[in-house]
Amino acid sequence: MEMQLPAKEDLYGGVVVEMKENMDPDVFHALLKTSKLQWKLQGKKGVWIKLPINLVNLVETAIKEGFWYHHAEPKFLMLADWLPETTSTLPGNATHIARVGAIVLNDKQEILVVQEKLGGKTEVWKISTGILKQGEDIHVGVVREVKEETGVSFKPLLCISIIDTEFVEVRAFSQEHDVFFGKSEVLFLCMMRPLSFDIQIQETEIKAAKWHKEHGINEFD
Amino acid sequence: MEMQLPAKEDLYGGVVVEMKENMDPDVFHALLKTSKLQWKLQGKKGVWIKLPINLVNLVETAIKEGFWYHHAEPKFLMLADWLPETTSTLPGNATHIARVGAIVLNDKQEILVVQEKLGGKTEVWKISTGILKQGEDIHVGVVREVKEETGVSFKPLLCISIIDTEFVEVRAFSQEHDVFFGKSEVLFLCMMRPLSFDIQIQETEIKAAKWHKEHGINEFD
Repeated sequence: MEMQLPAKEDLYGGVVVEMKENMDPDVFHALLKTSKLQWKLQGKKGVWIKLPINLVNLVETAIKEGFWYHHAEPKFLMLADWLPETTSTLPGNATHIARVGAIVLNDKQEILVVQEKLGGKTEVWKISTGILKQGEDIHVGVVREVKEETGVSFKPLLCISIIDTEFVEVRAFSQEHDVFFGKSEVLFLCMMRPLSFDIQIQETEIKAAKWHKEHGINEFD
Repeated sequence: MEMQLPAKEDLYGGVVVEMKENMDPDVFHALLKTSKLQWKLQGKKGVWIKLPINLVNLVETAIKEGFWYHHAEPKFLMLADWLPETTSTLPGNATHIARVGAIVLNDKQEILVVQEKLGGKTEVWKISTGILKQGEDIHVGVVREVKEETGVSFKPLLCISIIDTEFVEVRAFSQEHDVFFGKSEVLFLCMMRPLSFDIQIQETEIKAAKWHKEHGINEFD
């Protein structure tokens, strides 16, 4: 019988255990203890254990053997431990959310503004903004956000026209802390060129969009 | 006896349960089932459960009741569930790491370059770079990184002089995906003014720093 957990070496003197098959928690416990001892003797540093959510029955065992939570995504939990007597140099978790804001100007120098359906500021006319999905490019995400925010239908036959846009450039960015879950945010303010202009619906009780003269920006959030 | 888990309402029609005291997993199970039923009847949407690492014995119960991992930090795990029959609109996890790079120019138009001690490219002279800590401002983190990378002592009496710098501006940024743990990175390239100039040690086997004429940038990574 295999007396050690299956582990791969990483580039920094550590090992990575990716659990895939279910295992009796007592067997896991015994293997983990033996493995840690051997890794220590081998001078290994960081140890990573990736547990898919269906192996949640092994989480408690690993924590009791000294592991801690490094990060999690909906379908897995990443546990970590640092074997030497020195301070851990394991990299941290992701720290930022990336938000994009779209300045869409038409040839009359009108700016595209929307009203949000949810949240505390539903009366405010504002530019389209949204959070990038994992792995999404800024110039792709900002086009998607404008399209989504100007094209959502809330009642039959009351669909706001979709505004398609073309990314021009990032004009400015800002950084803000503790936005949610203690994480920071970088906002990229993008100049966008509209490829369609026809907004038919301006329902103020539903999510709405309109072209607005750039004067009087005190209306904006 | 309290027949429901202590929960606070959030601004989006959901509830947040922050577990602090230990609880028997069977009691937790019964309370969680009753609570979910009541929250559903009340029309609640997202449910969050924050479990500190010392309550790891409750994780399995929550997952079996339909919760999933939302995110984790070393000392806690955040679980989430979505009660309505609609698609979850819960916000995602943090997606980005923020890295800073420092272009430090002295009045001879020489640029500060360093060699890293660890990693695959220890022979390469490069500008100081580093990852922002959670909650750290770009202009603060970049000063810290230059100072750390030019001030580390590896042998007694062989301390490289610390270079203090002043932040001038972010000159450029870039975005890269799947940098580690599937997360993306934004790099902010900062112009920095040195406040000290005196580098005494140029040991190539240890981490080193030097002023370099801007010609011949093919030396850089």
